[in-house]
Amino acid sequence: MKAFESRLVAIETYLKGHPYPQEPAHLYDPIRYFMALGGKRIRPLFTVLCAELFRQPIAASLPAAAAIEMFHNFTLIHDDIMDQAPKRRNLPTVHEQWNSNIAILSGDALMIHAFKELEAYDAIKYQRLSSLLNKTAIEVCIGQQMDMDFEQLSTVSQEDYLSMIRLKTSVLLGCACAFGGIIGDATEQQINTLYGFGEQLGIAFQIQDDLLDTFGTEDAVGKQIGGDILCDKKTLLYIAFHERADKREKALFEQYRGMTGEEKIAGIKQLYWDANVLDHCKSIQEVHWKNTLGYLDEMRTVSDCGLFQELLQFIVHRNY
Amino acid sequence: MKAFESRLVAIETYLKGHPYPQEPAHLYDPIRYFMALGGKRIRPLFTVLCAELFRQPIAASLPAAAAIEMFHNFTLIHDDIMDQAPKRRNLPTVHEQWNSNIAILSGDALMIHAFKELEAYDAIKYQRLSSLLNKTAIEVCIGQQMDMDFEQLSTVSQEDYLSMIRLKTSVLLGCACAFGGIIGDATEQQINTLYGFGEQLGIAFQIQDDLLDTFGTEDAVGKQIGGDILCDKKTLLYIAFHERADKREKALFEQYRGMTGEEKIAGIKQLYWDANVLDHCKSIQEVHWKNTLGYLDEMRTVSDCGLFQELLQFIVHRNY
Repeated sequence: MKAFESRLVAIETYLKGHPYPQEPAHLYDPIRYFMALGGKRIRPLFTVLCAELFRQPIAASLPAAAAIEMFHNFTLIHDDIMDQAPKRRNLPTVHEQWNSNIAILSGDALMIHAFKELEAYDAIKYQRLSSLLNKTAIEVCIGQQMDMDFEQLSTVSQEDYLSMIRLKTSVLLGCACAFGGIIGDATEQQINTLYGFGEQLGIAFQIQDDLLDTFGTEDAVGKQIGGDILCDKKTLLYIAFHERADKREKALFEQYRGMTGEEKIAGIKQLYWDANVLDHCKSIQEVHWKNTLGYLDEMRTVSDCGLFQELLQFIVHRNY
Repeated sequence: MKAFESRLVAIETYLKGHPYPQEPAHLYDPIRYFMALGGKRIRPLFTVLCAELFRQPIAASLPAAAAIEMFHNFTLIHDDIMDQAPKRRNLPTVHEQWNSNIAILSGDALMIHAFKELEAYDAIKYQRLSSLLNKTAIEVCIGQQMDMDFEQLSTVSQEDYLSMIRLKTSVLLGCACAFGGIIGDATEQQINTLYGFGEQLGIAFQIQDDLLDTFGTEDAVGKQIGGDILCDKKTLLYIAFHERADKREKALFEQYRGMTGEEKIAGIKQLYWDANVLDHCKSIQEVHWKNTLGYLDEMRTVSDCGLFQELLQFIVHRNY
């Protein structure tokens, strides 16, 4: 990621320098704390790179890039409450470090500050950027609700699952990329291409995340493997298995589901393996990956997109 | 309120007809439920009336009026979680009827839909309206946090209290009025006048609310009297008393504070009465009331403001 270092530093410096009010401390300390927890800053990086395609200096895209990252962090603060997650990036979540009320309210404030970032642009761009963020934000809420609903359902279709990850995680990457085009006065068609690129990449990336959680190695992924299996999460692997498994396999699955720890992980992993579920999921991922590269080809009519190529290589080289 | 009926019907019809998506039901049923609970719709009414000052038909101000009301309802849904309030307008709150997670997320979505309403306007007005709503929304969060902080403090100054109610409740009425001016292409000065009118009226109204909660009659106010005293709320009466009371009076206050029910209410009410606290609070309210009327005089240079006069009469005639 060396080629992106100067851009990532610029994004980080901009985020750190945000002039949140000092008071009330209970509203703004949690925001400063959470924004400083880090993260890969992939979304704002895409905004910056997409604006560069249209010869925009980084200063022109930083407020929009920050809006995307701040919005993303607002969703994490509220999601962490809903999931009762104790940790985020190895540090206590906001509702753990303070309490749920503070996490609700500082999340609300962070969302509004995200929208406020867009005030840096002239009226025409402001309207286009914030309309797209409004639309995207609503979709993210819908995706989050679908995800919560899935927990209560006995079966989820592959189609519904793909809809859910598109809304919950991919549209924001689409929005991040489209922002670059809007800032760079791209045509409507070019903006749609950027959006499609980000959205399809987001879906492929999310499927990859699901697959790595089960079939990755701890060293390569950087976190414990099998978390999704342990908490019975309805991932693409889970859904594909249940759509293909026969009675005997399903009975075995239920048997392993009742177990705990490594035994449960190993058992279900083997079932997925025997049912060829991994290949099936990879073929779905491949569709979205090809869509991504198709959009990238369209983007090449604007610029050579060398940096995008490099970033995609980095993303796709997360090993199994 | 007969003069306002047609306008209130138009507001209600517009709010009811809002094209929220049908699905996911767990996201949008709570929004539809809560928006249908009613309320006086005072804020959107002021947006409509202020736009009429500048000869705008009601259709021109309805989206902005709805944005204000939807934003206000979002704050109520989240405040109800934070306050653990079981009821709102005699019906279960969203987190009671569903659960906290659903209340957090449907509140988030309602806030975004409020911002989205402003997309009905052209780019220049859109930027002015949503910048003002961004600023106001952040202030409302700050006010809510101050209010929560006050619960933990042993003393709160009158100045801090007035800051808190200005932010938590009055700036949104200021914003509602200013919206009418922005829609009506008013001058910057006229918009500031409308904002000041709403903001000062909001403060006077909130103080009135505090005073009625202790010194009103159940018949006139329409709810049980003494609720603030029972939950030891640091209202303007409480603060003014503690700034003026001597040692003996404070000791008596602590004695009553330890009691419950009617005995507690009657005891503390008598202490307030003896210390002339009601008159002091009324004098503060009077300052904001006079400011309101001063702004109204400025507004008369645009139109005769007969309807505003009538609405203020209605508001001020909430009896003790």
